[in-house]
Amino acid sequence: MDGHIATPAGFRAAAVAAGIKKAKGALDLSLIVSDVEGTSAAGTFTTNRAAAAPVLVSKHHLALNRGQARAIIVNAGNANAATGRAGLEAAERTATAVAKLLRVPNEQVLVASTGVIGVPLRVDLITRKLPALDAALSSGDPASVTQAIMTTDTFPKCCVLRSQVAGEKVHLAGIAKGAGMIHPRMATMLSFITTDAAIKPRLLETMLNEAVEGSFNRISVDGDTSTNDTVLMLANGASGVRVKPGDQSRQWFMEGLVQLTESLAKMVAQDGEGAKKLVTIEVTGARTPLDAERVARAIANSPLVKTAIAGSDPNWGRILCAAGYSGARFDPNRVDIRVNDFYLCRQGLDTAFDEAEARRELDRKELTLRIDLHAGSASTRFWTCDLTHDYITINASYRT
Amino acid sequence: MDGHIATPAGFRAAAVAAGIKKAKGALDLSLIVSDVEGTSAAGTFTTNRAAAAPVLVSKHHLALNRGQARAIIVNAGNANAATGRAGLEAAERTATAVAKLLRVPNEQVLVASTGVIGVPLRVDLITRKLPALDAALSSGDPASVTQAIMTTDTFPKCCVLRSQVAGEKVHLAGIAKGAGMIHPRMATMLSFITTDAAIKPRLLETMLNEAVEGSFNRISVDGDTSTNDTVLMLANGASGVRVKPGDQSRQWFMEGLVQLTESLAKMVAQDGEGAKKLVTIEVTGARTPLDAERVARAIANSPLVKTAIAGSDPNWGRILCAAGYSGARFDPNRVDIRVNDFYLCRQGLDTAFDEAEARRELDRKELTLRIDLHAGSASTRFWTCDLTHDYITINASYRT
Repeated sequence: MDGHIATPAGFRAAAVAAGIKKAKGALDLSLIVSDVEGTSAAGTFTTNRAAAAPVLVSKHHLALNRGQARAIIVNAGNANAATGRAGLEAAERTATAVAKLLRVPNEQVLVASTGVIGVPLRVDLITRKLPALDAALSSGDPASVTQAIMTTDTFPKCCVLRSQVAGEKVHLAGIAKGAGMIHPRMATMLSFITTDAAIKPRLLETMLNEAVEGSFNRISVDGDTSTNDTVLMLANGASGVRVKPGDQSRQWFMEGLVQLTESLAKMVAQDGEGAKKLVTIEVTGARTPLDAERVARAIANSPLVKTAIAGSDPNWGRILCAAGYSGARFDPNRVDIRVNDFYLCRQGLDTAFDEAEARRELDRKELTLRIDLHAGSASTRFWTCDLTHDYITINASYRT
Repeated sequence: MDGHIATPAGFRAAAVAAGIKKAKGALDLSLIVSDVEGTSAAGTFTTNRAAAAPVLVSKHHLALNRGQARAIIVNAGNANAATGRAGLEAAERTATAVAKLLRVPNEQVLVASTGVIGVPLRVDLITRKLPALDAALSSGDPASVTQAIMTTDTFPKCCVLRSQVAGEKVHLAGIAKGAGMIHPRMATMLSFITTDAAIKPRLLETMLNEAVEGSFNRISVDGDTSTNDTVLMLANGASGVRVKPGDQSRQWFMEGLVQLTESLAKMVAQDGEGAKKLVTIEVTGARTPLDAERVARAIANSPLVKTAIAGSDPNWGRILCAAGYSGARFDPNRVDIRVNDFYLCRQGLDTAFDEAEARRELDRKELTLRIDLHAGSASTRFWTCDLTHDYITINASYRT
C-alpha cells in the first residue's frame, strides 16, 4: 500500500523549509504529532559516548513521562552534536516551543537532529517556522517529511504496512534516513515509526528493542557509530486494537514490526555512501548466536571484503580471514562460503570455481554472501554495501 | 648506519627467484641463518583463527625446541593460507628440506609465507632452489632479502641499529613487509629481527612481546588482521654480550629493540595501500591504558577519519565521534583535539579555527592527531595512514 508516516489513524505530520540546510528552500524541519492523549513512545539511541544533545534530551523526556509522547520535532542540516551546554539548551528550547504550540507538557515532545557536527543550532530558525508547521499539519502533504529528514541520502526511505492483530486491522508506518555523510561533519541514522495499535509503553519498548536488534543494529556502511543515531516509535491506539504481552497479539504485531524495520534498515544499507550494491551476509552453523553475529559483523565491516565486492572479485580468502579475526570459535577447515548459491570455498578450500561465473554472481545489484561455519546451529543475517571510489570522493571532499 | 638483516655477527642471509611470484625473475625465496648453535628464537603471530600453515608450523617448532632456532625460510607470492592439510605438509616439507641443507634438526627451522590465500604452495619450486640459496648464502648480497619478502610494498623496510649494553656493542637488524594487499587474496605483515646479543629464550620472548605490543600491534592500515602476520626474532649471542632479566642490560637492550620495532612498524603504516600520509595518533589524559588504546584504535580504524585526512579536511567531529564509540570512558565536553600543535577542538567545542591554516597542517606527509581526554593520566600512540582512492583501486581490481 502507498502511504506515509501519518498513515496510521490519529497521526499528523508536516515539513517546512527553515533555512537550517545550506541549500536554499530545502525542506529541513519536520513535525510528527499524535492526536491521542496517552500515546506510548519508545526509543533506541546511539551508544556513542559523545551522544548529541537531542539524543540526551529525548532520552530524558522518555524517562520523565514513563514512555509517553505526543510529538517528534526533527531538524536536518545541523546535528546539534559536540555543542556543549548551549546545544542542550537549544534542544530543550525547541521542545518547549513545540509543546506550547501543541498545548502538551514539554516532556511529551521528543527531539531529533541530523547534519553537521560541532556547529551551534540556531533555535530561532526553528521557532519562527512553528506557525507555518502548524498550518501545514492540517493541509500539508505528510510525504514531504520523508524528504525533510534526508541529508546525503539518494532516495527517501519509507515503509507502510497494514497488519492484522486477531483479525483487526492496524497500521504501521516508518521512515528513515541513512548513515550517509556526504557533507563532511554529517552524522546520523534516524528512523521514526508510528502505529495506531494500542501498546503499553513497557511492551512497546521491549518490542522496539527486539526489532531494532535484528534490523538497524544489523547494518553497517562504514563501521562508524554516529553521535545522533535515533529510532523513535509512537503507538497511539487510535485503531482500537490492543497488543498485549504474553498474548498472540504480540506475535502478530511483532511480525509486522520486524518486516517494517528490516525493510527500512536494508534501504539504509543500500543507500550507503557511494554504494552500488546491497549485500546480505548470512552466517549459519555458528556455535552461538553471538559467534554468528561476530562473524557477520566482521565481514560486513571489512574494507577488503567490501572493495572486493565493488570489483566483483570472488576473493573468498578475505571473507574467511575476516571470520578468522572476528573472535568467533570455529574450525576454518570446515567452512563453506557461497555467493548467492555459488560455492567459492568448501571445507576451507578453494572449489576451483569458474571465475567468469563467480563474477556474474557478484555483478548483481543485490547479492548474498553465505558463510556456513559448521560449528553449531546458530545463525544470523546482516546487511551492508560495497566500498567504492565514491565513498572516498564523498568523504574526502573539503568543506566549502 | 647502513646494513641489512645479516649485519649482526654470526648471521647470513640470501634470496633467490624461485618462480612463486608471478613476475618472472622476481626474488621470492629468502633464507636467514644463524651460524651459532643454541640461537634463541621468539615469535609473535596472528591471532586470526584461520592462521596460515607456516604460522602453525613455526609456533609448533618454537614450542618443540623451547625457543631455539637456526633458520627462517620465507617465501613471497603464496601465503599458504586456507590450504588445509596439504598446506601444513608443504610447510613441514619446506622446513625439513632446509634443515637437511643446513644439517640442523627440522624443528630448528621456522617458516613464513606471504601472498595469495587459498592457492596450494608448490614445495618443489622451493626445494629445487635450495642449492642456489646455499651458494648465495656465502656470496650473495643479503640486502636483497628485504626485497624478496615484499609483495605490494612500495619500498623495502629495513632498520639496523648498533646498541650498547653496559658499554659493549651489540647489533640489531630488522626487516618488515607491509599489510599491503594490492594483489587480491594477498595477506600478511611479516617482520624478522636478528641480534648478536646473548638472550635466553624466555627473556627474548618477553622482550619481543613487549616491543611488538608497542609497535606492530599499534598500527592499522585497514583494520583487517591477516592470516599470516608473523614477527620472528633470533638472538645468537655472537657478540659475546649477555642480556639478563632483572638487570640494567635488559633496559639498555630494550631501548634499541623498541626503537627498531617502532621504526619498522611506522614504515609499514606509511606504506599502507594507497596511503599518502603517515598519521601518528597520540591519546593522552585517558582513565586507563586500555581506554587510551581503545580511543587510539577506534580513530586509527575509522574510514571517516582516514578519508578526511586524505582530503585534508579538519573534520574533528569524526575524531570525537570515533572516540565516543570506542568504549572508553570520558566526558566529551572536556576533550581537546589538535592536529600537530594546532587546536581544532577545545573542551568538546569548535575553536573557530582558520580553515586554511588547519588545512596546511593536514597537508603534511607526516602528521600527528593529538587527543587529550582529560579523564586521567594514561596515554598511548598508534600509527595509521590516510584512506585514498588508490586503496579502492588496488583492492577492487579483478584478479587476472
